[in-house]
Amino acid sequence: MIETRLTRAFGLRHPIILAPMAYVGGGRLAAAVSAAGGLGLIGGGYCVPDWIMTEFHNAGETPVGCGFITWRLAGVPGLLDDVLAREPRAIFLSFGDPAGPGAAVKAAGVPLICQVQTLEDSRAAVDAGADVIVAQGAEAGGHGDSRATLTLVPEVADWLAVHAPEVLLCAAGGIADGRGLAAALMLGADGVVCGTRFWAATEALAPKGHHAVGLVATGDDTVHTKVVDIVRAFDWPERFQNRVLQTAFTAKWQGKNAELAQDQAAHSAWLAAIQSGDTSIASATVGEGIGLIHQVKPASEIMTDMTHQAEALLGGGWRRES
Amino acid sequence: MIETRLTRAFGLRHPIILAPMAYVGGGRLAAAVSAAGGLGLIGGGYCVPDWIMTEFHNAGETPVGCGFITWRLAGVPGLLDDVLAREPRAIFLSFGDPAGPGAAVKAAGVPLICQVQTLEDSRAAVDAGADVIVAQGAEAGGHGDSRATLTLVPEVADWLAVHAPEVLLCAAGGIADGRGLAAALMLGADGVVCGTRFWAATEALAPKGHHAVGLVATGDDTVHTKVVDIVRAFDWPERFQNRVLQTAFTAKWQGKNAELAQDQAAHSAWLAAIQSGDTSIASATVGEGIGLIHQVKPASEIMTDMTHQAEALLGGGWRRES
Repeated sequence: MIETRLTRAFGLRHPIILAPMAYVGGGRLAAAVSAAGGLGLIGGGYCVPDWIMTEFHNAGETPVGCGFITWRLAGVPGLLDDVLAREPRAIFLSFGDPAGPGAAVKAAGVPLICQVQTLEDSRAAVDAGADVIVAQGAEAGGHGDSRATLTLVPEVADWLAVHAPEVLLCAAGGIADGRGLAAALMLGADGVVCGTRFWAATEALAPKGHHAVGLVATGDDTVHTKVVDIVRAFDWPERFQNRVLQTAFTAKWQGKNAELAQDQAAHSAWLAAIQSGDTSIASATVGEGIGLIHQVKPASEIMTDMTHQAEALLGGGWRRES
Repeated sequence: MIETRLTRAFGLRHPIILAPMAYVGGGRLAAAVSAAGGLGLIGGGYCVPDWIMTEFHNAGETPVGCGFITWRLAGVPGLLDDVLAREPRAIFLSFGDPAGPGAAVKAAGVPLICQVQTLEDSRAAVDAGADVIVAQGAEAGGHGDSRATLTLVPEVADWLAVHAPEVLLCAAGGIADGRGLAAALMLGADGVVCGTRFWAATEALAPKGHHAVGLVATGDDTVHTKVVDIVRAFDWPERFQNRVLQTAFTAKWQGKNAELAQDQAAHSAWLAAIQSGDTSIASATVGEGIGLIHQVKPASEIMTDMTHQAEALLGGGWRRES
């Protein structure tokens, strides 16, 4: 058992938080992670109330939390209050100013987790009252900025030690097995946030065909791009890109953002490909850690494998004799 | 003492290799790292014979190795043979096809270290006969590709375990203290390659004014750019960018590569700024780890601090009670 400040604060058996993957992390996955001793979060991302409420229902009686894309929340008044009324185990905010929604979360007495992409972001997260800061590197699947997990985590740890030592710290981005978990603890994290590894869980709502291409991909096969946001007409702030598996489509359009924005045929092709499972067009949303993942497994097994491997390493198993 | 396959293979006291930083890692720094129990490498980078031979002289009697930018070596016939005649402790190749020079290194009975930036690169390195593969993430200072250390290291480790288990593995990029060293060991590395931390050594040949700006920078302040190569008229392969501290100059020219290539005034301004120490123009070549570095210290002290911190973490010091 790996006991940390995170496991004690949230009453977890393992210092592992499920990344709130938009549309992929539904109630079943979140509940499976919580039931296995981690902290399960519904991927409330784009703030579609019906989807979120359905997934809370699908979580059943198991306590789970919910994540939001912060800059989308302001456009959906009432949603945060409705979710807070369900007494979520935590609210996870990422990508945007956490001050406003953070205050509402704190007022409701719900733990506030703020994901940051830079040292500078950490200040705003602490000011917003974050109980946990998640330092996310650009190796993560989905949206991110440019810093790497390996340097961001210890730098935020040093900053928190001086300015807010009571705030917990988790690492996100590139953590897909027990090696990554053990490494994150060495860097000063109290726990980890894992997306890609749980994207390949049996309970994940991955689009048709995506698991198959993900399992044979290497970490070299992902790309940080604006293409997927443009083709879906999501108005993401400039600083954030989206890490996905490279496809013929993303390769063709990379760097042609303005042209793509005007190309209705490309938009339609993308939407059709998501439905049909055409993985030469629609990209699987995964991080560089996909190269460490070779099997779709139940979330509980993922948790067991990851923690056993980390425990062995922390106990001295990193030594290699030959 | 942290004993690994690397310390045993090279007779080191610490599993730490000095990154061969072009023009910054001279003979004094390389010798200091070797004398302190690591593996010191002269930064032979751009393959300027006089500079390299002077720095071998400056290393004195202490055994050191040498690193080269692989794609530059072909343009300087005879240099590799001249360096091999000095019986270097190792040759370190990065950025280009290692097959040709690798064969010469192996024929001379000198250990061959190949730095790679992708899983795919690892195949070529093993084929070239690498004794050590260095998996370098894009958080590194100076040149690199796009993958992150945190995912590249375990992925290469898994590949080597199947295809070439006798080849050692080191991690490079973002490792600036004992936390990074301990994390790298958890990821499956036999040791680490450190640049930025030794860039801030008293023995380093950092350009005028650069240490001062580096010490107050955070990891948020670096940028991956082509600007510095264009302004120096270095014909780097497209896939490699250069991580440096952002300056007003690099910010102004970012993304305007073709225009910059034609701007002679900008080139002159850059060269003048290197000489004069104008750090609003000329960038310090450092990685994201710069945010973890707050003091210029002798290399021996850097080694001691890093290994003591890593030993404490590996012994259970990662646990935080409060």
